[in-house]
Amino acid sequence: MVDILHRVGVKTPAPDKVYEALTTVDGLSSWWTGDTTGDGDVGGVLEFRFSAGYFHMKVIERKPSERVTWKVVEGPEEWVGTTIDWTLRQDGEYTIVLFKHEGWKEPAEFMHHCSTKWGSFLMSLKSLVETGEGAPAPRDVQISDWH
Amino acid sequence: MVDILHRVGVKTPAPDKVYEALTTVDGLSSWWTGDTTGDGDVGGVLEFRFSAGYFHMKVIERKPSERVTWKVVEGPEEWVGTTIDWTLRQDGEYTIVLFKHEGWKEPAEFMHHCSTKWGSFLMSLKSLVETGEGAPAPRDVQISDWH
Repeated sequence: MVDILHRVGVKTPAPDKVYEALTTVDGLSSWWTGDTTGDGDVGGVLEFRFSAGYFHMKVIERKPSERVTWKVVEGPEEWVGTTIDWTLRQDGEYTIVLFKHEGWKEPAEFMHHCSTKWGSFLMSLKSLVETGEGAPAPRDVQISDWH
Repeated sequence: MVDILHRVGVKTPAPDKVYEALTTVDGLSSWWTGDTTGDGDVGGVLEFRFSAGYFHMKVIERKPSERVTWKVVEGPEEWVGTTIDWTLRQDGEYTIVLFKHEGWKEPAEFMHHCSTKWGSFLMSLKSLVETGEGAPAPRDVQISDWH
């Protein structure tokens, strides 16, 4: 069992803007994919669409400014059943974001790709909160032939 | 046991430029840290210095345009004894780089940070080969309060 882990620090006085970017359709549309719909409340399903595919995430937990957890209910076979967990805390001038995408069955090449791509999208989230401008799909940073 | 995995695709007709960037002091200085010295041959030790610390890597394997493996012999406690493995292959217009940093004892917060930071440095490697310009330390992309 292998996980994807990441950590970024977002320069902002409190975690509320990061939390908003993880829990509202408007926020998620501004750093992950412009084509986001659905319900970000606990029990709701968020739908994220990209040119190459889609992910549907059920919101399992949300604790204001502290934690958000999603479970993948539809999407690529490798993703279904995995969990994505966001933990936030304030450390001086930075909101520290700890990210974990867990439950992968095997460390296939697609998982390597998703790890790098998540890191790139976390930088988009950081940029959104710090500057007002993220890089969501379809204008996301291209990391390879797989986009 | 948890690993850091990444995958990028570098738009270049053959893997030789990526291989050179992973095996020569000049190449490594141009995408990872400007302060690189040492010997990139098998059995040699490469020394990478950053404002916050350093890593010494023993070159365990190198197979032209296919594979490079380092073992960390000095540096932060969490890194010593871990292995960094690079696999290259050509897929059409892209050299595919599969990266694995394995042997971490536990998924501590520092490992989350290193995962994101490696992703960012792989983008620097990609940029170096594609454009001639990387973003090595000390002008690397800042991802958090930990730099």
